[in-house]
Amino acid sequence: MHLSIDRQRLIEAVQDVLKAVSSRTTIPILTGIKMEADEEGVRLTGSDSDISIERFVPLEENDEQYIELHQPGSVVLQARFFSEIIRKLPADTVELEVMDRFSTKIKSGQSEFNLNGLDPEEYPRLPLIEEQNSFQIDAQLLKHIIRQTVFAVSTSETRPVLTGVNWSFKNGKIESVATDSHRLALRHVTIEGASDTLSFSNVIIPGKSLNELSKIIDDHTDWIDVVVTENQILFKAKHTLFYSRLLDGNYPDTSKLIPTESKTSIVVATKQFLQAIERASLLAREGRNNVVKLVNLDDKTMEISSNSPEVGKVFEQIEADSFDGEELKISFSAKYMIDALRTIDATSIIIDFTGAMRPFLIRPVDDSSILQLILPVRTF
Amino acid sequence: MHLSIDRQRLIEAVQDVLKAVSSRTTIPILTGIKMEADEEGVRLTGSDSDISIERFVPLEENDEQYIELHQPGSVVLQARFFSEIIRKLPADTVELEVMDRFSTKIKSGQSEFNLNGLDPEEYPRLPLIEEQNSFQIDAQLLKHIIRQTVFAVSTSETRPVLTGVNWSFKNGKIESVATDSHRLALRHVTIEGASDTLSFSNVIIPGKSLNELSKIIDDHTDWIDVVVTENQILFKAKHTLFYSRLLDGNYPDTSKLIPTESKTSIVVATKQFLQAIERASLLAREGRNNVVKLVNLDDKTMEISSNSPEVGKVFEQIEADSFDGEELKISFSAKYMIDALRTIDATSIIIDFTGAMRPFLIRPVDDSSILQLILPVRTF
Repeated sequence: MHLSIDRQRLIEAVQDVLKAVSSRTTIPILTGIKMEADEEGVRLTGSDSDISIERFVPLEENDEQYIELHQPGSVVLQARFFSEIIRKLPADTVELEVMDRFSTKIKSGQSEFNLNGLDPEEYPRLPLIEEQNSFQIDAQLLKHIIRQTVFAVSTSETRPVLTGVNWSFKNGKIESVATDSHRLALRHVTIEGASDTLSFSNVIIPGKSLNELSKIIDDHTDWIDVVVTENQILFKAKHTLFYSRLLDGNYPDTSKLIPTESKTSIVVATKQFLQAIERASLLAREGRNNVVKLVNLDDKTMEISSNSPEVGKVFEQIEADSFDGEELKISFSAKYMIDALRTIDATSIIIDFTGAMRPFLIRPVDDSSILQLILPVRTF
Repeated sequence: MHLSIDRQRLIEAVQDVLKAVSSRTTIPILTGIKMEADEEGVRLTGSDSDISIERFVPLEENDEQYIELHQPGSVVLQARFFSEIIRKLPADTVELEVMDRFSTKIKSGQSEFNLNGLDPEEYPRLPLIEEQNSFQIDAQLLKHIIRQTVFAVSTSETRPVLTGVNWSFKNGKIESVATDSHRLALRHVTIEGASDTLSFSNVIIPGKSLNELSKIIDDHTDWIDVVVTENQILFKAKHTLFYSRLLDGNYPDTSKLIPTESKTSIVVATKQFLQAIERASLLAREGRNNVVKLVNLDDKTMEISSNSPEVGKVFEQIEADSFDGEELKISFSAKYMIDALRTIDATSIIIDFTGAMRPFLIRPVDDSSILQLILPVRTF
């Protein structure tokens, strides 16, 4: 392999695949980045065996030449060093030449590195994906769906399926659900132009994979093709392929958790409510479980309070836009409420309660495509 | 104590004194901030017993009223909670009222906190400072002096005096020296208008104190009065007092370490040289001691190189502006060189070598007030 490449393009590509590279892998070659050059361009791959990212840099694009290819070939280079070196090199182009035993010369300006490389034949192959179940989604919408659900996955390995987000597809609609069994986040979206026959369920994507995917979808990404198989999911953008393994096991049926009736219903301004909860949580954090109390003082005014005997007390008053139904007296985790309110993206929300020990629902006032559920805490 | 105070002024003042408050103190009341209110204004104090910071907020300034005083008094409040609470409060003013047993009501808008307070009588007194040895210095110049020397203090407690910066004052000049016994940084400055009789030596200020002092000197600070006593130093800005204890012991005589002759002298562009060293250090970090080699290839071109058998090799070529004297072959810590070059503030530097195992000097080409010394490492 021998080529010259635009340094900025190389930096961006390495940055993307680096997101899949873990320094704590048990497979030494996975601390490296695979680089392959042919007449089309340069292909970089990083993987931690759960997530694999492939990034392509074409020889030229939009009348700009990015790569001058002298000799096709491939090599695996230590990801951390390679990435730090190219970021610090002095000139706008980088010359890369693989020599004896995969030792790779990296030249730029008056700077020359000789980096020990590894045999690319030893690098694991990417999974073969059959493109049977696939659909196309707006990249920014996909980021939204991820943001609005992934925070609710479980961080405990007690029930591994709960560390993932469950995707299902039916009647042209995708539904994304996450729960750690104390709270739940659900978002569904109609996918325009999806095949009528497309249908799947129990596609459990690790939360970590979705977080990394979110980071490599930039503002310039328009569309993403999603391909679902038995045990892998593939996200395809223009020059990027993102593979994630799926979690084994059956995701619980969460539809039964969601109450259908409501005893108390309040409408409140999201930002004002969030800020009051955030202040109350300053002391709640010290107490057990980060719990705050919510009661109504009259038919419009509510009080959020928290008490940490060692530190002090806090009382927040907030005016609801409307308050209907029974008197309210409930305690819940401030952290769960903050997580839900920060991702709900609505100026006004409606909260439906069905009793002090029943889960309650938070939704935007004018949007039924998103739903957050929180289990209260027993304190009254 | 009962008052209303401008929230922004209070936040700034608390932020400043917070720099002296440590959460790992053995004296519980020092996790708090002392607040005293009288007819002049509000005085806040934070301390970790090594450093104490006092910050004053006047009732009014520049025709703006900052404080409405209802009742003078004082209290000690938990620093971390108090600071987080006032930053999150909803309105522009904060009402503070000390009630029974130092419980303190903090009100702003519809938000009300009751924070457990402590008895201010139990808060340690600030040291009494006799203002005999004092001088005035430009605040930004003081920051420079700190930055150009403090990085070279020792981080090891083997010789405690070396964890401080040594200040001495003679003939109207202040000299600041720091060394960890492998490198040394020296800066001297003429103080305009200092008293002819002012003279001191062996004033050893903990490096940590100077770093914290640097952080609270903002761009609006013009002048600082420095008062030196037997075991304390006091820095006085307009509304801020910064006390630091001095280190006990005798600082070593560093003047003998500085070579007076030179066998090889090179002049080189600082930035270019720094960047080449930074790249070479990418691999050097892996090897032992972060060592790079410097040799001259001909009478102008120098090569910086580093070799880490596990990772690879790097060669950097750099053109000197001038090269005089014997051939050069020397190895040194890339980290020490980077630290020195980053603080030297000159576009061109002169480096004087007196042999592969003798300390070498780095100075700006046209400025003798700053000097950096580095001990080489034996590798040739």
